[in-house]
Amino acid sequence: MSNRTYRVTEIVGTSPEGIDQAIRNGIERAAKTLRHVDWFEVGQVRGQVKDGSVEHFQVSIKVGFRLEDD
Amino acid sequence: MSNRTYRVTEIVGTSPEGIDQAIRNGIERAAKTLRHVDWFEVGQVRGQVKDGSVEHFQVSIKVGFRLEDD
Amino acid sequence: MSNRTYRVTEIVGTSPEGIDQAIRNGIERAAKTLRHVDWFEVGQVRGQVKDGSVEHFQVSIKVGFRLEDD
Amino acid sequence: MSNRTYRVTEIVGTSPEGIDQAIRNGIERAAKTLRHVDWFEVGQVRGQVKDGSVEHFQVSIKVGFRLEDD
Amino acid sequence: MSNRTYRVTEIVGTSPEGIDQAIRNGIERAAKTLRHVDWFEVGQVRGQVKDGSVEHFQVSIKVGFRLEDD
Amino acid sequence: MSNRTYRVTEIVGTSPEGIDQAIRNGIERAAKTLRHVDWFEVGQVRGQVKDGSVEHFQVSIKVGFRLEDD
Amino acid sequence: MSNRTYRVTEIVGTSPEGIDQAIRNGIERAAKTLRHVDWFEVGQVRGQVKDGSVEHFQVSIKVGFRLEDD
Amino acid sequence: MSNRTYRVTEIVGTSPEGIDQAIRNGIERAAKTLRHVDWFEVGQVRGQVKDGSVEHFQVSIKVGFRLEDD
Amino acid sequence: MSNRTYRVTEIVGTSPEGIDQAIRNGIERAAKTLRHVDWFEVGQVRGQVKDGSVEHFQVSIKVGFRLEDD
Amino acid sequence: MSNRTYRVTEIVGTSPEGIDQAIRNGIERAAKTLRHVDWFEVGQVRGQVKDGSVEHFQVSIKVGFRLEDD
Amino acid sequence: MSNRTYRVTEIVGTSPEGIDQAIRNGIERAAKTLRHVDWFEVGQVRGQVKDGSVEHFQVSIKVGFRLEDD
Amino acid sequence: MSNRTYRVTEIVGTSPEGIDQAIRNGIERAAKTLRHVDWFEVGQVRGQVKDGSVEHFQVSIKVGFRLEDD
Repeated sequence: MSNRTYRVTEIVGTSPEGIDQAIRNGIERAAKTLRHVDWFEVGQVRGQVKDGSVEHFQVSIKVGFRLEDD
Repeated sequence: MSNRTYRVTEIVGTSPEGIDQAIRNGIERAAKTLRHVDWFEVGQVRGQVKDGSVEHFQVSIKVGFRLEDD
Repeated sequence: MSNRTYRVTEIVGTSPEGIDQAIRNGIERAAKTLRHVDWFEVGQVRGQVKDGSVEHFQVSIKVGFRLEDD
Repeated sequence: MSNRTYRVTEIVGTSPEGIDQAIRNGIERAAKTLRHVDWFEVGQVRGQVKDGSVEHFQVSIKVGFRLEDD
Repeated sequence: MSNRTYRVTEIVGTSPEGIDQAIRNGIERAAKTLRHVDWFEVGQVRGQVKDGSVEHFQVSIKVGFRLEDD
Repeated sequence: MSNRTYRVTEIVGTSPEGIDQAIRNGIERAAKTLRHVDWFEVGQVRGQVKDGSVEHFQVSIKVGFRLEDD
Repeated sequence: MSNRTYRVTEIVGTSPEGIDQAIRNGIERAAKTLRHVDWFEVGQVRGQVKDGSVEHFQVSIKVGFRLEDD
Repeated sequence: MSNRTYRVTEIVGTSPEGIDQAIRNGIERAAKTLRHVDWFEVGQVRGQVKDGSVEHFQVSIKVGFRLEDD
Repeated sequence: MSNRTYRVTEIVGTSPEGIDQAIRNGIERAAKTLRHVDWFEVGQVRGQVKDGSVEHFQVSIKVGFRLEDD
Repeated sequence: MSNRTYRVTEIVGTSPEGIDQAIRNGIERAAKTLRHVDWFEVGQVRGQVKDGSVEHFQVSIKVGFRLEDD
Repeated sequence: MSNRTYRVTEIVGTSPEGIDQAIRNGIERAAKTLRHVDWFEVGQVRGQVKDGSVEHFQVSIKVGFRLEDD
Repeated sequence: MSNRTYRVTEIVGTSPEGIDQAIRNGIERAAKTLRHVDWFEVGQVRGQVKDGSVEHFQVSIKVGFRLEDD
């Protein structure tokens, strides 16, 4: 309703499948320990290469969640 | 051929499926009212989270289209 | 073992399918001529539009590979 | 319901009073000709100085509004 | 005395009144659970619009606080 | 006099001659359909190469113009 | 009349009251020793916190002034 | 093995000796309370000056550590 | 010979002719009052528009010059 | 036809005449050893000053060229 | 006590030894002509190479000092 | 003498000792295969942590060298 405060925490989600899945993996892992996760914002996308192919994607994500008691 | 001018407009495409689809949705919606859409450039990728999972992706996109009469 | 030096080269991978596939295409092409490709980092994502739909995605990627003899 | 597309337009709001008021002035002016204005994002803050005092503030603002028919 | 380490956490403060108040609200809320809050740094300023007027301001703020035991 | 609002629109001006001319071409084209064009700001400068020479310059420009009725 | 040159100097204005006042304080102090101050541009906004509240705001400002004799 | 998630936290390490030592101090302090610290990334380097000499260096560092249970 | 210190000052050069000339004008004006000007670095390029044409270019330039006695 | 990969290499072109000519000089030199040069993108513009005048312009340019065999 | 204004000036410190020493050299040189130097902030780090080794480091530094009479 | 063209290549130098040494290692390795290396420019500084201490520093460096025949 009024003057809510949010906290933003940064995570890196990973996946061998692709960027979307790395984001989903990261968000779902973060939501296990954070309540009221509300939005995310993608930062840098990096990845590892092995034997000439993409092994996994690493997506840095800022995750916003509402603080309680405010 | 000569000295064409382009206009660039910014949109935000969304999709529950992923980033590629959010881009496609945004471009297709923009092309309904803009002629000569030629290229796009992805900006910030954000999204909403609900019940600990990604609800939808929001992709900010600059869309370039050629101006006529030039 | 120690004090390795890496080189970083920039490529643009493309695909009509999506961003992940453009990255994979670019990395696999780069790995044909570079040895010891180790990681990548995504830069700008752009694309071409034709008849109101995304024709292909163009993803600029920095590719890091270890230099030998060090 | 889903896959909404938004457009983002950039304006510069001005005010002799301060930054908040320059934002409010810009948003209210923009809302006269745009429907469904939903959010804004502040860019560069500049201003003019006259006789050694701030004459007015100029705040560049990106304004997002939902496109209809989607 | 020497070699202190600080932690920086990111919050988003909000207010219907303006940017200064959104910062104050965020800092005061953060200081309820963090000790030794020392400085802040403003990031992105965004906001929500309703019925053509600014409904509230959302100010992203990095908050620095000294870690104990060092 | 007071509290004027400006709109900023982005264009890409082009020219085979050089950057200054690409800017002039873009501004003159934009001024055909926009009234009260007041200032510009240069963004990214790109270009096409053909047979080993610059074929044309493409200069992205933000164009500011005053909105009427305010 | 033409081909004027401006100098840009960076200051940090401060105020316990808020960002607007910190800008006004900085500009007024700068104008005591600089002639022909013409415009300003806000950079980073930081501040000090004491006992869980904002103690003062620190606003970095680029100040432009016209050089004489040109 | 797969789909690990990392968290990134920001600290400021300090030292009167130099930048490398400020980084080492910060990392060692952070590792006292965080498990699985894996990598770091240097941000802004600032410092305090006293009597015309550098008193200490302040190095902002993002620290990445693996989350367990994933 | 060794450990020279340079100062960097920011100016805005202007010209109705184009960007190169605006840079030359600014550098030549700055060199009237600064000794040992050594290099420059171009920042933002802006300009004024009048009656639908570019009236003059404004080029922000960082100018580096060697300090004496060191 | 499809899934082409491009490489991007960075050069610095120079000229005593101006920015456009520095770009042309750099592109023409690069095209002597690179095939299929397709586009360029201007980065930082710097220069040397001698006796109070611009001695030469140095323009950093990213040059994109298509890789064969793909 | 209150509403102090600071000025920020940019210098480039150099040293054949390393980055820390280049910063110290620059700060000490600046402090010879500026009073109340209070803090610094490191910008770009560059350097010259000769015969395949680093000849000297050049560190761009913003130096903040308090203005008197405020 | 005139219109020289330079190439800029990006490397990552590493060292367990510190940032300066990582730069020196990278430059010396690069100079084994590149002629006329002239300057460098430091980008991102990262590193690996093991058992709570910095294991090695990784410094991304742009290396500029003059092209022959021009």
